[in-house]
Amino acid sequence: MFTPPPGAIAVIFLSGRSVADAQGYGAAADAMVEAASRMDGYLGIDSTRGEDGVGITISWWRDEAAAIAWRDDPEHARIRESGRAVWYDWYRVIVATVDRAYGWTRPTGD
Amino acid sequence: MFTPPPGAIAVIFLSGRSVADAQGYGAAADAMVEAASRMDGYLGIDSTRGEDGVGITISWWRDEAAAIAWRDDPEHARIRESGRAVWYDWYRVIVATVDRAYGWTRPTGD
Repeated sequence: MFTPPPGAIAVIFLSGRSVADAQGYGAAADAMVEAASRMDGYLGIDSTRGEDGVGITISWWRDEAAAIAWRDDPEHARIRESGRAVWYDWYRVIVATVDRAYGWTRPTGD
Repeated sequence: MFTPPPGAIAVIFLSGRSVADAQGYGAAADAMVEAASRMDGYLGIDSTRGEDGVGITISWWRDEAAAIAWRDDPEHARIRESGRAVWYDWYRVIVATVDRAYGWTRPTGD
């Protein structure tokens, strides 16, 4: 189970989907993950969206420089423009530095 | 649109739901939000869960002391124990400090 180390950067993207273009959105979301995972300093991504159309995606980065490089990546910028034009009613971006992390998994077997 | 100020604390809770006890879970989730919102230093909460059972909940706190007080709150601890016993297959908790935040809303009217 992946937990980011202290000092890693979380780029938290909260969004409300418009009803437009479900197919195009799915393809772009896949392309976004693909583009992020090719970046230096990429640690992982967690994403979910509920039935109400509200989604939370968190991408994890080694350090501030890696997060900034992702923000400025041309393919990211291009997909982001489509997001504003078509897919989102609103979004919020919060950049935060990891202080601590831990995980738990249900024990199996008994 | 709420965006947390720099220095605020994000408590990021990622979880995989077990299939057990959907009704009890819903009531507990509501009770958890209610308990959090009564705490000093509570700024807000964002939460979503997808069809695959993966959920992301982020509670926002004024400072580290407020986040620690929430961690140690007895009602929170009680619900957390039920979570481990019944509702979750796994979870991860990441505590992070907000560096910057911004939001966008689709312009209306034109």
